[in-house]
Amino acid sequence: MARAVGAPPVHVLGTGTALPGEPVGNDRLAHRLGLPSAWVETFIGTRTRHFAVDLDSGRVRWTLEDLCTDAADRALADAGAEPSEVAFIVLATATPDALMPTTAALLADRLGIEGAAAYQLQSGCSGAVQAFAVARALLAVSPSGLGLVVGGDVCSKHLDLGQDFHELPPGALVNYVLFGDGAGAAVVSGAPRGGARALLTHLEHRAAGFGVPPGQRVEWFGAADLRSGDGRRPAVTEDYKAVEHRVPVLARQLLDALLTAAGWRPETVDYLLPPQLSGRMTERITSELGQGFEWEPVSCVAETGNNGNALVFFQLDRLLPRLAPTQRALALAVESSKWIRAGFTVEAPQEASDA
Amino acid sequence: MARAVGAPPVHVLGTGTALPGEPVGNDRLAHRLGLPSAWVETFIGTRTRHFAVDLDSGRVRWTLEDLCTDAADRALADAGAEPSEVAFIVLATATPDALMPTTAALLADRLGIEGAAAYQLQSGCSGAVQAFAVARALLAVSPSGLGLVVGGDVCSKHLDLGQDFHELPPGALVNYVLFGDGAGAAVVSGAPRGGARALLTHLEHRAAGFGVPPGQRVEWFGAADLRSGDGRRPAVTEDYKAVEHRVPVLARQLLDALLTAAGWRPETVDYLLPPQLSGRMTERITSELGQGFEWEPVSCVAETGNNGNALVFFQLDRLLPRLAPTQRALALAVESSKWIRAGFTVEAPQEASDA
Repeated sequence: MARAVGAPPVHVLGTGTALPGEPVGNDRLAHRLGLPSAWVETFIGTRTRHFAVDLDSGRVRWTLEDLCTDAADRALADAGAEPSEVAFIVLATATPDALMPTTAALLADRLGIEGAAAYQLQSGCSGAVQAFAVARALLAVSPSGLGLVVGGDVCSKHLDLGQDFHELPPGALVNYVLFGDGAGAAVVSGAPRGGARALLTHLEHRAAGFGVPPGQRVEWFGAADLRSGDGRRPAVTEDYKAVEHRVPVLARQLLDALLTAAGWRPETVDYLLPPQLSGRMTERITSELGQGFEWEPVSCVAETGNNGNALVFFQLDRLLPRLAPTQRALALAVESSKWIRAGFTVEAPQEASDA
Repeated sequence: MARAVGAPPVHVLGTGTALPGEPVGNDRLAHRLGLPSAWVETFIGTRTRHFAVDLDSGRVRWTLEDLCTDAADRALADAGAEPSEVAFIVLATATPDALMPTTAALLADRLGIEGAAAYQLQSGCSGAVQAFAVARALLAVSPSGLGLVVGGDVCSKHLDLGQDFHELPPGALVNYVLFGDGAGAAVVSGAPRGGARALLTHLEHRAAGFGVPPGQRVEWFGAADLRSGDGRRPAVTEDYKAVEHRVPVLARQLLDALLTAAGWRPETVDYLLPPQLSGRMTERITSELGQGFEWEPVSCVAETGNNGNALVFFQLDRLLPRLAPTQRALALAVESSKWIRAGFTVEAPQEASDA
């Protein structure tokens, strides 16, 4: 057996992100929904988000494919890489444009990538990490090409803008103020390459809700449901009490697991990329986890809204320009669907970074 | 760099499949749809299929999760493996029960698998091969645990049984006679292990439709579409002329690529697992590809219908008991969505099977 046990690091060569249109502030959103703006500020703590659909007309302005194309273009440019160097795409999303073809396959054409393998993961907030984990494995068995890792969400099919929002219970309204649309991408390599921006050195992806009911369920409907018009089940259901309780617990477990895997003492960590459900939750988790340490938090959700599979790429986009030699970061994602904890350790690239 | 270039083989320790309820014959189906039964026999060549939904009442009797659980239980039993040995699940489907949580994550709970990584690929007929390719890569970086590879489809949300079938154009009716529901699974290992049933030695997964329009598109609808009731786009659209033309061409390219990768002369191949759209297409492709060779075809579509991501597992379930020492097989899948060619070479396990 010629294989080394354990996974080599993922070399991040470049990142890019894309947001649809102008930021939508709480005043505008609250007015559209018939909510008090202060309520959003106080309880959600998210200040702006971006929607691929026009809030007034309901018209779809950007598809997930559009946003992923923009993010990937920027990541390729940031990496100084050509589309022809990409051997595979791994795209993570909860909201693909269609069931078939995948957005990943259509993205390849849009980017001019010919003959690559295009994988699409169905995933929520842990999707970016899942995609990096699959990319790491694919790079280990075919280390010559580059990987393009993409995550994004566009929830336009779920934004029912024609309804009377005054009739909705608060639990349903929360979905309109928590979430946003966007996409992110990273170009990765299994082997060291000049100009690498960061190394992902340890990855964790694990189911963490054995025997526990899901915290979030999102349905899709087919032709039969469309005709009958009832859909039987609500499109989106959450147990926000369970989310508020369990996400901090799972974030702590994940943090400890990553520190152990990396053999890092907490005081040697410089940045924390926390899980991001809302601006308020992120603030709370960040301060709880970081108590006693001088970790600089890197988050985006207060400006982007919770754009699911894109979030981690926005955090990387903010982290990488700041990451000085010898600095370290921890990235944590917790998915409340069936409870998934997923994260990774980030290190600045070094000359002798080869595993 | 301690890693070996190239991927080690995937050791298949066991397989299992599951079909919902009784087979639905052409007479019954044609009567339900108001079609002549002989038309289905002649043009489609599929004799039976299974539906997770009751054809008369429209009631959903099995979810994808149900079928995947049954198939995985059988694969674990066939492999003589415990759920606790499973380090990861890769599940491929075009028709997940929900957008979140994934069927893969819920399957882990159903099987009693705790703390594993559960990946779900959005895919069509190439999904089983894609899942094996991801599993191979994951095994290469964490060779100690077992992988559970699963594929299945349940198209119940797309079966609009309330409509007047006499008003449907033939192109829409074809979907009701081509497709079926089912799931399959395999337990895989990266290292040799006693009782392995087969080795997957070379895997190919590649986009093969650069610049070519998709051959199939399947929509999903959200809460907003459900309310408006129009959905704007048809739920399922196919270009069957393009499918008939391109699938044999791509199957030939795939076959040549696999033979080249494996360094096999065609006359040393014993079995062909052909792409399976319908009974008729499979017959045609098998005879075209196998011309001049004594390859024994292994297919299931005439009895199972086209159950998408499950097909390859049904073929493996039929192949493995027959695979004698030194025998070889080629498995070919072509996905007509955005045109994907994906397949692998199969060899009987040998004592000295280590790469």
